[in-house]
Amino acid sequence: MADQYAYSGDDKRPTEIPAIRWEEPPEGPVLVLLDQTRLPAEEVELVCTDAPALVEAIRSLAVRGAPLLGIAGAYGVALAAVRGFDVDEAAAALASARPTAVNLAVGVRRAQAAHEAALAKGGDVRQAAAAALAAARQLHREDAEASGRMAEHGLALLDELLPGGGHRILTHCNTGSLVSGGEGTAFAVALAAHRVGRLRRLWVDETRPLLQGARLTAYEAARSGMAYTLLTDNAAGSLFAAGEVDAVLIGADRITADGSVANKVGSYPLAVLARYHHVPFIVVAPVTTVDLDTADGASIEVEQRPGHEVTEVVAPQVPVAGAEAGGGIPVAPLGTQAYNPAFDVTPPELVTAIVTEEGAVSPVTAEALAEVCGRSRRVAAG
Amino acid sequence: MADQYAYSGDDKRPTEIPAIRWEEPPEGPVLVLLDQTRLPAEEVELVCTDAPALVEAIRSLAVRGAPLLGIAGAYGVALAAVRGFDVDEAAAALASARPTAVNLAVGVRRAQAAHEAALAKGGDVRQAAAAALAAARQLHREDAEASGRMAEHGLALLDELLPGGGHRILTHCNTGSLVSGGEGTAFAVALAAHRVGRLRRLWVDETRPLLQGARLTAYEAARSGMAYTLLTDNAAGSLFAAGEVDAVLIGADRITADGSVANKVGSYPLAVLARYHHVPFIVVAPVTTVDLDTADGASIEVEQRPGHEVTEVVAPQVPVAGAEAGGGIPVAPLGTQAYNPAFDVTPPELVTAIVTEEGAVSPVTAEALAEVCGRSRRVAAG
Repeated sequence: MADQYAYSGDDKRPTEIPAIRWEEPPEGPVLVLLDQTRLPAEEVELVCTDAPALVEAIRSLAVRGAPLLGIAGAYGVALAAVRGFDVDEAAAALASARPTAVNLAVGVRRAQAAHEAALAKGGDVRQAAAAALAAARQLHREDAEASGRMAEHGLALLDELLPGGGHRILTHCNTGSLVSGGEGTAFAVALAAHRVGRLRRLWVDETRPLLQGARLTAYEAARSGMAYTLLTDNAAGSLFAAGEVDAVLIGADRITADGSVANKVGSYPLAVLARYHHVPFIVVAPVTTVDLDTADGASIEVEQRPGHEVTEVVAPQVPVAGAEAGGGIPVAPLGTQAYNPAFDVTPPELVTAIVTEEGAVSPVTAEALAEVCGRSRRVAAG
Repeated sequence: MADQYAYSGDDKRPTEIPAIRWEEPPEGPVLVLLDQTRLPAEEVELVCTDAPALVEAIRSLAVRGAPLLGIAGAYGVALAAVRGFDVDEAAAALASARPTAVNLAVGVRRAQAAHEAALAKGGDVRQAAAAALAAARQLHREDAEASGRMAEHGLALLDELLPGGGHRILTHCNTGSLVSGGEGTAFAVALAAHRVGRLRRLWVDETRPLLQGARLTAYEAARSGMAYTLLTDNAAGSLFAAGEVDAVLIGADRITADGSVANKVGSYPLAVLARYHHVPFIVVAPVTTVDLDTADGASIEVEQRPGHEVTEVVAPQVPVAGAEAGGGIPVAPLGTQAYNPAFDVTPPELVTAIVTEEGAVSPVTAEALAEVCGRSRRVAAG
């Protein structure tokens, strides 16, 4: 239990309970997740003893967010290896648990490759499992470090774009320590601005249908002592029109070679609004989110989620008599069909900058993006 | 009870229960409202015996929608008069129950003016009350007729803008027979397209925070047999990007002299998206919604509603243990502050056309709008 979580900064974490940790009780190793479907009402942990349990946790969004999905995927492979399950089968199931975030497959592949390499070098099953676990822990630590560097680069960019200070930042979905080995992506930049006294207000989009903004970002903002205000996603237009937004900061689930950004549904409308109002639209993501093998936005597979997320409202913390299949409370007439894409795609021409741990890319071009990714690989190889 | 509701078309109404009706049981006259906060789970009627009860119903959105608010306001004045309450006091309370929809104050004033005129002509209290009631009934009938003419003009405009037919129309909030003496405004146009076989799909924005789209428009669409699909407000961007929206049709709560349109929050972002994707953005509203005394969008008072509508989710049909002050289920951390404007304002340059019962205004200019309003006044005077 020495390595419960990789983060070790000086600041208080928004929650005392890490989003993910590896534990080794006498019964055998387990992966412990903070169940994000129960926040903010309850801080409940989910214990996974095998990859299928983790796949279920990923699908139900108990664990979510691109960087954290990568870490979870890697630990999931290690869990299968350590407990003697079929590693390739576990890896395949984990990698395809959700289609859009590239980090998930990347994290899975990394632990699987370490496992294969150990076996290829003549290691036994136990040594191979240890190698997979070491790879997962390494990814976890790297993500925490990347988080800190994204915050630095992002804050520098904000100060350059908005020299007046007193930033009023709009964010969408949840991108803090709940999705990261560290303090997150976009949220980490807002937090850095808050710490140096330059955040005037964080505008938090509630982020329908699953309300990750209302439930999770508001929770992280409250615990960090930020000035924040919650709004329905469609009230953002009024804020832009009133000149109350200085910058939009969001994360990403996948960034393609041309700089197209897949992120939580509702990001693209914000990009269009930001462009119309001449407000910077900034994407913050680790280079592991950049998928140079996917050419452009049109090639991204966007996950379509069940309609009941829209036809019912989520209220996970309250037991409800008559709750429907999805566990929510029906709001639409019975039989209503819903369109429920989990993500949308913002083309590079609407993105002011992509901030990675290796620096900011602005303007967003395929060349600049490839260069930043190359910088990261050189560091990794060096 | 001869005049329960003014509508008398041949088609089946979406619901058998009218949104509003005047009744005269032995106990005395009452105004009966279909409680829209309980739909679609339950069709429950609210009986108002005095103006304060109606003010409360207006504030709680049991009765809502610009045209219906005008009708309700007029009946409310009649109710006060018939029951012997202070008419001016009732009128003042009703007119200021909600600030943004101009129809409310216009409807109240119309019944009040009829009451005053009857008294000035030497009528007694009873005759003055009858005059107020006659004015309310007249407004109710006119609104039903206006609805039919808006549908005709709107359908003609759609056919002109989209000659191919097979319209895929996106709408926001609720604008059907629940808000009207007839079949509504924007929804009436979609319904007309449906009846002639030219509506391919109605995309229904859920319309946070109070979900009037999910609860009410989906209910009306289902009962009308339309092909409809529900979506979260922020998923509209994906539909536009995929070329799945041929036109946006919305209603209005107030249209100022310059053609600025105040409507349910979330309308303005749709207007920006529509412009970015070269999709027509069409506002459908009776001329009573045009407020020539208000110069421009900046002069509109936008109602700010309580934060609990955002920090809690509505689930009126299910009794919930531990429900908060707003009657909903808390989703954000305790103490979270919310920004909750009920409306936003779309400037005329983003509006392709304003369709009224007197014809369509396109392009939207102060002169064209004044001309259409003048046409209406000439008709009324003639």
